[in-house]
Amino acid sequence: MSNTINRQIRLAARPVGLPKDSDWKLVEEPVGDPGPGEMLVKIHYISVDPAMRGWMNDNPSYVPPVQIDAVMRALTVGEVVASNNDRFATGDFVAGIEGVQNYAFSDGSELTKVDTNLAPLHSYLNTLGIAGLTAYCGLIEVGQVKKGDTVLVSGAAGSVGAHVGQIAKITGCRAVGIAGGPEKCTYLTDELGFDAAIDYKAESVADGLRRTCPDGIDVFFDNVGGEILDEALARINVGARVVICGAISQYNNTTPIQGPSNYLSLLIRSSRMQGFVYFDFREQWPGMMKELAGWLAEGKIRSRDDIVECDVDLYPQVLLRLFRGDNFGKLMIKLPS
Amino acid sequence: MSNTINRQIRLAARPVGLPKDSDWKLVEEPVGDPGPGEMLVKIHYISVDPAMRGWMNDNPSYVPPVQIDAVMRALTVGEVVASNNDRFATGDFVAGIEGVQNYAFSDGSELTKVDTNLAPLHSYLNTLGIAGLTAYCGLIEVGQVKKGDTVLVSGAAGSVGAHVGQIAKITGCRAVGIAGGPEKCTYLTDELGFDAAIDYKAESVADGLRRTCPDGIDVFFDNVGGEILDEALARINVGARVVICGAISQYNNTTPIQGPSNYLSLLIRSSRMQGFVYFDFREQWPGMMKELAGWLAEGKIRSRDDIVECDVDLYPQVLLRLFRGDNFGKLMIKLPS
Repeated sequence: MSNTINRQIRLAARPVGLPKDSDWKLVEEPVGDPGPGEMLVKIHYISVDPAMRGWMNDNPSYVPPVQIDAVMRALTVGEVVASNNDRFATGDFVAGIEGVQNYAFSDGSELTKVDTNLAPLHSYLNTLGIAGLTAYCGLIEVGQVKKGDTVLVSGAAGSVGAHVGQIAKITGCRAVGIAGGPEKCTYLTDELGFDAAIDYKAESVADGLRRTCPDGIDVFFDNVGGEILDEALARINVGARVVICGAISQYNNTTPIQGPSNYLSLLIRSSRMQGFVYFDFREQWPGMMKELAGWLAEGKIRSRDDIVECDVDLYPQVLLRLFRGDNFGKLMIKLPS
Repeated sequence: MSNTINRQIRLAARPVGLPKDSDWKLVEEPVGDPGPGEMLVKIHYISVDPAMRGWMNDNPSYVPPVQIDAVMRALTVGEVVASNNDRFATGDFVAGIEGVQNYAFSDGSELTKVDTNLAPLHSYLNTLGIAGLTAYCGLIEVGQVKKGDTVLVSGAAGSVGAHVGQIAKITGCRAVGIAGGPEKCTYLTDELGFDAAIDYKAESVADGLRRTCPDGIDVFFDNVGGEILDEALARINVGARVVICGAISQYNNTTPIQGPSNYLSLLIRSSRMQGFVYFDFREQWPGMMKELAGWLAEGKIRSRDDIVECDVDLYPQVLLRLFRGDNFGKLMIKLPS
């Protein structure tokens, strides 16, 4: 592989607001060969996630910031193409955090083998990966959802949100989603089985919540933040769980984050707001993946992929689609084979 | 008692910002006699609490708003002076929610007998009442505090805060308090055994937290809100519990409540923020009171009373002391005997 060219997207500068072209640089270099104990992975799919925006800031977080000049961090699935590692053989399919590039070396410590007989490779970036696992961990473990709850989810047509609503239905809950535009809302109710949807572009969230959650909210799974979080807090029931998964409305702010003005609802409703990342539950992933794979096989969970076929040089443009709200389904890049 | 005069403070108008004289009215009327099954309680002490400000607003809360023209709601301790009730006899001392007045009728359903051999009557508004129980419920039940935690409390020289720090020490934690002025801070460290105190009038809270919580915060018990909440969120550890007991900095706002801009710390630190009122744990109070009484008897808990001897007509002025931050210890009114 020595002479094969690896193309990498590296972070050139810390973005202010939306990342712009000059925040990135494309580096091309020969791949080289794996060292002792190492293997070389050819990346097939790169996951494009809102969390990436946070990784670019020089702030403390659950993972260190991506350093300037480093390859941009990204979840990936790919195939082992050369191996000096006892645990992995050429031809193995693997999921990991290999970054926005075509090839990566690994000692295997951060890689997981995946079974492409159980589900197609890119599912391991969707239902059997970050999207499904984040929904599962947030709703079941953090949200402690129980039968009969009213579950509200924002960013509901996004990859995580779509799983949240469907797992809520499987658990015997009423599922209500907030999304932008009639196409996404129809998808939620007609294809995914949500009980109701709020199109925040067509009605105020406050009106929508009055209409769809007349008995209040027991679990709110928030991917969006801002006004939506405040309106939901205004309608939580006693003992509610507000699960903070993300705040996509705030990630590109150049002004301070909008904090939830209605946070004292937590006090008067004896409720809690809890954040998490799905890595917290890493040890439980195998069991969760088995359950998710079962639901997928039974047709109880459907997922939508938003796959952009391109090389890594287009990653900066693909990322921006997340913040314009115009992706629909799990956004990922399929690299040239 | 028919001809004895009962003086009552009733709510005349819903305050905007700090309550003013015209928001109240004083009503004097003959007491009358208890009906069948009823008793008459002569109130000795009236608890003056920050929560009262919230009860005056026409907003949904954990209790209904005080209605216009109704007697202002207040926790009280007093003595049964006439009884047609089988469970209570003349001479019994009782704690309840009898309002800002000299006398109240009760059918006993909301009253608890208290033992004045165990502690003086007014202790049932302090360590053995709202202050001690709120601290206990919030720190132990909601905050799930454990040995070795760093516990930060705001409003630390207030009646609840002072108990929080002392219970934290009893539990084997490091206790840090935020209070205003050197007198209160010295009280925390020298009299109550806090490990450190931050005088927010003398240094920025951010600086104070860097100085006193170099290893971060495991439990933050917040009575204050606003900037203090944000600074604490910036320094929480993974798995922290932020206990929302109150937000005295925000209660008289005429602008929207300041929401915590740093709430995404909950996400990156996999932490939770949880509200409560001590009524949530009513069934556990007897056991908690026993434990608190033991600590009080052993000298492990000290409490400070800020007792104003006056009649109910001065209640509006006494209440304002809470919001100026110039009370020191549990604020209560001792009525003329």
